[in-house]
Amino acid sequence: MTEAAIDWAAAARAELARKTMPRGALGRLEGAAVALAVAQRTLAPRLSRVRALVFAADHGVAHDGVSAYPREVTRQMMATLAGGRAAAGVLARATGIELEVIDVGVDADRHWDGVVDARVARGTANLRHGPAMDASQCSAALAAGAAAAARASTHDAIVLGEIGIGNSTAAAALLAALSGRPAAECTGAGSGVEGPALARKVALVAEAVARVGVGRTARELLAELGGFEIAAMTGAALFAAARGQTVLVDGFIAGVAALCAVRIDPPCRERLVFTHRSAEHGHRVVLAELAAEPLLEADLRLGEGTGAMLAVPLLRAAAAVLRDMASFDDAGVSDRR
Amino acid sequence: MTEAAIDWAAAARAELARKTMPRGALGRLEGAAVALAVAQRTLAPRLSRVRALVFAADHGVAHDGVSAYPREVTRQMMATLAGGRAAAGVLARATGIELEVIDVGVDADRHWDGVVDARVARGTANLRHGPAMDASQCSAALAAGAAAAARASTHDAIVLGEIGIGNSTAAAALLAALSGRPAAECTGAGSGVEGPALARKVALVAEAVARVGVGRTARELLAELGGFEIAAMTGAALFAAARGQTVLVDGFIAGVAALCAVRIDPPCRERLVFTHRSAEHGHRVVLAELAAEPLLEADLRLGEGTGAMLAVPLLRAAAAVLRDMASFDDAGVSDRR
Repeated sequence: MTEAAIDWAAAARAELARKTMPRGALGRLEGAAVALAVAQRTLAPRLSRVRALVFAADHGVAHDGVSAYPREVTRQMMATLAGGRAAAGVLARATGIELEVIDVGVDADRHWDGVVDARVARGTANLRHGPAMDASQCSAALAAGAAAAARASTHDAIVLGEIGIGNSTAAAALLAALSGRPAAECTGAGSGVEGPALARKVALVAEAVARVGVGRTARELLAELGGFEIAAMTGAALFAAARGQTVLVDGFIAGVAALCAVRIDPPCRERLVFTHRSAEHGHRVVLAELAAEPLLEADLRLGEGTGAMLAVPLLRAAAAVLRDMASFDDAGVSDRR
Repeated sequence: MTEAAIDWAAAARAELARKTMPRGALGRLEGAAVALAVAQRTLAPRLSRVRALVFAADHGVAHDGVSAYPREVTRQMMATLAGGRAAAGVLARATGIELEVIDVGVDADRHWDGVVDARVARGTANLRHGPAMDASQCSAALAAGAAAAARASTHDAIVLGEIGIGNSTAAAALLAALSGRPAAECTGAGSGVEGPALARKVALVAEAVARVGVGRTARELLAELGGFEIAAMTGAALFAAARGQTVLVDGFIAGVAALCAVRIDPPCRERLVFTHRSAEHGHRVVLAELAAEPLLEADLRLGEGTGAMLAVPLLRAAAAVLRDMASFDDAGVSDRR
């Protein structure tokens, strides 16, 4: 029997049932252990060496006031990200993860030391009025993501994260088009819009989805409604999964990129581990579409890969339980259940 | 102004509001950062060196069939705990925490290498029929906990955990007596009892609470209804808090011990950090009594300090955010909110 033919989920569940603890006592940590066993095709999964890939880009739609922050914030954040003092850098150090920041489309005159320059263009076009990117730009962004994943190809896993003012609007539109769900179910506060501003954001998403129409492929929708960082995360997921690498997916934006990857290449699903349930409204649709039940639920909605990073120590612990914990048999403990 | 006079919660919240992220974007991690700032009276809290104290003891009430496991399991688990292959050992290693296991009342002929011997007696008396322990036994158990905390007095924090077949019944009875809430609200599945067995457990708890009557002090209730490991955790919490040390409280059983400590010495509350919301039914009463909002919610109900250990990497990350992350001002990022 080949590794691929083994039902790793069933094998991991059976192994957990033998551990010296009441059945299910480790709650959602056990589901995470099963997801890692499936992703790595082993009952001894490892996440020793993990690299977070944080892709940054700007969005034409941000000119329409869909964010609580001005569009310049993407650019302004790059030096802080590169210097390791943004949330991504602080949490990467706190959790023992390497961090690589990749500029795939920031609207700026300059580049930054410590940031990989893979800029496709200075932001996308406004998805409200036409395609966010053309086919060759979409290919370039997918390739930039694949290249970043390739640089981490000896790591046990990669984390997918992002930054980009306006990208929760792009992700919501892409999700609505991919899932067929109403714009209102897919669209949330993002960086903090509420009330009438949120209603305008929902209307804009609905308008964009209506513009692209039905019957389009996932790849076409990615170009029409996505962003460079979203396409890069999709490319990274596709590349890493095809090589059998584990992909740890952050919250809403990264989740939509992952959904896009699964629609393009369904077998990649088993390599993806969804790490947390974001406070962003549309994330529930993403998780439902992918039948994912993430480990962590702490009302996170920051992006930059931070939710996935925070989950890594818990995932490492889940792997250790599966790998190292004693069973009732070998410990000589009664299991009279 | 002395350290104690500063409103550390308000100061920590103000500091978080200056960080380069949308307001509240780190969700419950921010509440954890505030709790640590309060516990350590600083905006630069640390959890570098943490020791988990796991107290083990047997319970007379376990003879009444209140657990899904036979009473011998406490004894059987000791060698596995000492060898580091129980959940506590695996998770301590996975999260970079030292582990000390202390026998404060296991019913066994022998002792174990690698387990601190502080046995008060071979299990408590049955709390259904009379006091679980006499006043001198209760003092001895409190002192054993204080001694364990003293051995860790240079650590940044201690974790309080336990093992003991029958101890969710003792904890439920103690909680019902301390809180005045009905037995049914305080009693849960423990290691996995359900249906008629759970109904019998609830009835037994109600009977024990009725036996001790009202108007008793927390210390008296601890002796009447507690267990040696529960009293030891109470003693450890009181000792550590009095010395200004941070105490990380695991789930239901440890939470009841912490509640007991707060009733004995209310100012100790601010040194206690509640780490996770257990799947055990009565834990919601514990958290409500202590106005605690734990960080982690993952349906854990194993004990052995495991929930608190799993929370430690997240708490370390929360501390790092408060300590190290850039503010809008020093990063030159627009905060137009």
